[in-house]
Amino acid sequence: MRTQVGIIGAGPAGLLLSRLLQLQGIDTVVLENRSRDYVEARIRAGILEQHTVSTLIDAGVGDRLQREGLPHDGIFLQYPGTRHHLDFPELCGRKVWVYGQTEVTKDLISAQLAGGPPLLFEVSDVTPEDVDTDHPRIRFTDADGVSQVLECDVIAGTDGFHGVSRPVVTAGTSGRLWERTYPYAWLGILADVAPSEDELVYAWHPDGFALLSMRSPSVSRLYLQVDPDEKIEDWSDDRIWDGLSTRFALDGWELETGPVTEKSILPMRSFVSAPMRRGRLFLAGDAAHIVPPTGAKGLNLAVADVTLLATALVRLLAEKQTDLVDSYSDRALARVWRCTHFSWWMTSMLHRSGDDFDAELQLSQLRRVCSSEAAARELAENYTGLPLDV
Amino acid sequence: MRTQVGIIGAGPAGLLLSRLLQLQGIDTVVLENRSRDYVEARIRAGILEQHTVSTLIDAGVGDRLQREGLPHDGIFLQYPGTRHHLDFPELCGRKVWVYGQTEVTKDLISAQLAGGPPLLFEVSDVTPEDVDTDHPRIRFTDADGVSQVLECDVIAGTDGFHGVSRPVVTAGTSGRLWERTYPYAWLGILADVAPSEDELVYAWHPDGFALLSMRSPSVSRLYLQVDPDEKIEDWSDDRIWDGLSTRFALDGWELETGPVTEKSILPMRSFVSAPMRRGRLFLAGDAAHIVPPTGAKGLNLAVADVTLLATALVRLLAEKQTDLVDSYSDRALARVWRCTHFSWWMTSMLHRSGDDFDAELQLSQLRRVCSSEAAARELAENYTGLPLDV
Repeated sequence: MRTQVGIIGAGPAGLLLSRLLQLQGIDTVVLENRSRDYVEARIRAGILEQHTVSTLIDAGVGDRLQREGLPHDGIFLQYPGTRHHLDFPELCGRKVWVYGQTEVTKDLISAQLAGGPPLLFEVSDVTPEDVDTDHPRIRFTDADGVSQVLECDVIAGTDGFHGVSRPVVTAGTSGRLWERTYPYAWLGILADVAPSEDELVYAWHPDGFALLSMRSPSVSRLYLQVDPDEKIEDWSDDRIWDGLSTRFALDGWELETGPVTEKSILPMRSFVSAPMRRGRLFLAGDAAHIVPPTGAKGLNLAVADVTLLATALVRLLAEKQTDLVDSYSDRALARVWRCTHFSWWMTSMLHRSGDDFDAELQLSQLRRVCSSEAAARELAENYTGLPLDV
Repeated sequence: MRTQVGIIGAGPAGLLLSRLLQLQGIDTVVLENRSRDYVEARIRAGILEQHTVSTLIDAGVGDRLQREGLPHDGIFLQYPGTRHHLDFPELCGRKVWVYGQTEVTKDLISAQLAGGPPLLFEVSDVTPEDVDTDHPRIRFTDADGVSQVLECDVIAGTDGFHGVSRPVVTAGTSGRLWERTYPYAWLGILADVAPSEDELVYAWHPDGFALLSMRSPSVSRLYLQVDPDEKIEDWSDDRIWDGLSTRFALDGWELETGPVTEKSILPMRSFVSAPMRRGRLFLAGDAAHIVPPTGAKGLNLAVADVTLLATALVRLLAEKQTDLVDSYSDRALARVWRCTHFSWWMTSMLHRSGDDFDAELQLSQLRRVCSSEAAARELAENYTGLPLDV
């Protein structure tokens, strides 16, 4: 087998890269070690920046997003006694969209399977080779158990934090890793109940952070800050709803409850790996970096990486110019660090941790964001998404 | 002896309070346990907010400040390879002034001794009593060793972090304390050399923070981040200048050196005590709160406290209305926490501490402040001083 760009991983990063390259006449093959059902069932982020929405629409995979996505003009910040609305269009002229990453993935898979480039599920033993040459290849075993070799001009590693691509990059370069594990986790639920508020509520509470979010007009997505070593079995639905009700409490407002259809505990981590390239192997998305979910940046950062990378690969493969592939890692990492800092900042402002002095600093920062145009706009610009080159 | 307001402590807070009350026809007596020479020799902060300058001028103690003070339109933020100017008037319409706290203190003492209210130096055994009644008093021993009683309507505790006033407040109320000791200190020098830059330079460096500041066109004030347990004897002038030159290094720019006339190591601490009142005893300035010097907020916060307190005491004593004394502590503390947060933020952004991930967060924040109008304005508004009621 041979292709121009071998793509490892069929998450939104890999699928979108394949789509963007296809539209520019570049051949790709996408390899995924999970099944289609598994990939389409993963519950992930749900907030899309305007840039992400535009990119998906321009790539021809935004029809359902435009029908079913919920445009949001802001968020609420809450601390005891106060629920303050930040108006994003007023602050920075942009908005965000609620549309699950799962749905983005489904839309991209549908488009790919409807006449797009090859997408192979349930492959195994995926191994990038000779990435320091102009003729790299990917060895893998296909779903039928047959050993295959995919000859490529370029390999894209979009296989996430646990994928095989990043170790190949870091083994061959003087790379660096940065990591931060936060001393708390999120207990997340999906519930069949209309969202109790029309936009997201980020709530600081002495008991810990809570987030009210949604996936659709009839499905709520809610999170509670818990200790990282909590067991999900210890959290009955009643206990979860009690915790949520306490943390979102506000005079004259009620949290609506409903059947919980999914619940899990998510660790909170920041991770950055640099560089994002070794020779002809390029990393994008979670393969190179993880942010905690508080700033809703993970998926959007992956889309930004892929947008830069697609342009750089077209320039390399169609125009034989190396300038954009050479600058890819630095340009992507500038944005990665901006979003890593913003995600850390949102996370640190909202989660209870540390001592009473830390709590007062958090409240002081929240009061400031809720009363200062400059501080509110700084949040709004970062939340709704900065330009590709920050 | 009897007066309307007995003021404990002749730092800038106590002296300015006495001055402001005198101008409103309220009698005061100021008690200070140190000598005049000692008080006038203490080297402290040197950046005045516009509000502080206006207050001093309006109080008739701003003549020398207006002659000798240096108006500054901004600061420089530096990290390796970059020295970026923040233009405060452009960002927020305000500027700051360089004029040492020592000079402010001298000006206030001169005015006080030139026909102002009594100012007694070198008193001892100062003890506020009966502060829960409408007839509090201060017992003390005067400079001649004679026991005295000062009968008052109100007592103001402006006697700093180590003073006698705060323990009286905290002993009698359900008060709270918050404290943070930072894992670094400042080694500060005064040097007889013209400042090498015309405005302050706040420099992030892998070796640690450095600050280039000045007291006059011929006197530089410079600081180096050091470990809190460093001994000043281990820091020769050459070692200090070497450290400063390394941390301020910039192509095409030289740090001028000169004779060091003073050097010392300053601990870095945040401290807030609440409430700032017990009965007829009111705290202002360092007696109630300490901020690390990075944000240049300590003196300005004291002046803001005193401005609120003077108005509240005039209202109580001249108009017999308690509303402003009753709201004093909450109003002052709102501002205290804003400045405490800002000082912590500036400090945390600029000092090396923690791991490599923290360093990258700092650099990401610095790059953002140097490239985003919103982030720069957020710094500028806080640095130049927010309204009295935040």
